[in-house]
Amino acid sequence: MNKTIVIQKNHKTIREFKNEAIPKEIMEELFEVTRRTATSNGMQTYSIIRITDKILKEKISKLCNQEYVARAPELLIFIVDQYRNSQIAIEKGLNLEDTNDMDKFFQGFTDSALAAQNMVVAAESLGLGANYLGSILNDTEEMCNLLELPELTFPVVGLGIGYPNQKPQLKPRMDMRLRIFENKYKKYQNYLDVLKDYDSEMQTYYDLRDANRRVDSFTEQVKTRTKLTLEKRKEIINVIKAQGFDLMLKNH
Amino acid sequence: MNKTIVIQKNHKTIREFKNEAIPKEIMEELFEVTRRTATSNGMQTYSIIRITDKILKEKISKLCNQEYVARAPELLIFIVDQYRNSQIAIEKGLNLEDTNDMDKFFQGFTDSALAAQNMVVAAESLGLGANYLGSILNDTEEMCNLLELPELTFPVVGLGIGYPNQKPQLKPRMDMRLRIFENKYKKYQNYLDVLKDYDSEMQTYYDLRDANRRVDSFTEQVKTRTKLTLEKRKEIINVIKAQGFDLMLKNH
Repeated sequence: MNKTIVIQKNHKTIREFKNEAIPKEIMEELFEVTRRTATSNGMQTYSIIRITDKILKEKISKLCNQEYVARAPELLIFIVDQYRNSQIAIEKGLNLEDTNDMDKFFQGFTDSALAAQNMVVAAESLGLGANYLGSILNDTEEMCNLLELPELTFPVVGLGIGYPNQKPQLKPRMDMRLRIFENKYKKYQNYLDVLKDYDSEMQTYYDLRDANRRVDSFTEQVKTRTKLTLEKRKEIINVIKAQGFDLMLKNH
Repeated sequence: MNKTIVIQKNHKTIREFKNEAIPKEIMEELFEVTRRTATSNGMQTYSIIRITDKILKEKISKLCNQEYVARAPELLIFIVDQYRNSQIAIEKGLNLEDTNDMDKFFQGFTDSALAAQNMVVAAESLGLGANYLGSILNDTEEMCNLLELPELTFPVVGLGIGYPNQKPQLKPRMDMRLRIFENKYKKYQNYLDVLKDYDSEMQTYYDLRDANRRVDSFTEQVKTRTKLTLEKRKEIINVIKAQGFDLMLKNH
């Protein structure tokens, strides 16, 4: 087992950071790793918005409903960016309608996530910690406004990075035997039953996020979080459409 | 610069592999790294279909329209898997309609991509090579059939892994100064102009994929590939809907 894999197997979400900026050279190194990440068809259809403005950071923190977002030394928002390539294609003589399909959206979405993860591994290899912010999707319409995102762009995931100021426990994860299938999908008859061991493992885990509360079993978390999903998050497709992507829906 | 970052900065797509299986312990190591990857809300809404059946591999290779897919020693398809958590929630007393929104789809999509990239870094740190297969989205309806994917699952990206049997050049990438914006999106007036240097850099690159042809400039590639997008790929949302996800579209 090499150092890279040791780091990867030890991944923990870090939400509290030392009050210490990340040196410029280190950030440039992280951006270079991001740049070298695989990208669909070589099209590089993502960009990064780096949040340095304190007031904007606080607005995003509020939208995320997570106070620690405002305290992250570095806050990066990865976005689908098909605006750039659409403009290129138009400058080359194509029409907007040739460039705004959902295939491009998903290319950019995948590109963004791959780049973010590559950056996280690089950051952790340098002793930095990171947290992903799926919560930037709480209100994507407002997120687009805050970042002045033009048509054919869309927020994917946020990333807070800094020097760790906490030492969380390794979080229990579901056995991969339940998640890797050979040649075809495998359904189980009773999930509460096959997840019994994992459920009890989860209950012994001490979560720094809510240190005063006993952690629910995994299956109980699934139930609770399913019920708690924000309506605006469920309606995300409407904002994607409003950003100019053509859904090409049939029979509706 | 540490070893992890050296590997990341040296990432190249490997399409041709030695005729040599990856040892079981190595695959287990890669799956363990995948398991430890960050996951939205702890929900772990992705799974992996490992393709070991030769005939199935050939069918997927045909769908991808890429012969090398059939020759990959390991072929893995990462999928959105909200089927599992939906079943859990239903066993816990919720209704299907509480569990099939697009927020869950995007959680699973992001989870899949993060896990795939984490696996790629681990694989490369062990001297393996990998290629991403966005081409599994050429026909997602057929992909769902081939893998017997149930409702609330969906293919995201494929991964071919093995011991490299080629040494490609490092592919030129766009300057990150054009892709990292501070606090808000920055539009450029003339993309062909700002990309001039990158365009000529790309034309000197020797691409093993099509070794007999001079590589187009980046902006020319954008034009060509935009025009070539398959109709079925553009219409991907229809298949996502057919897989049981509720788009929650308004005013259409």
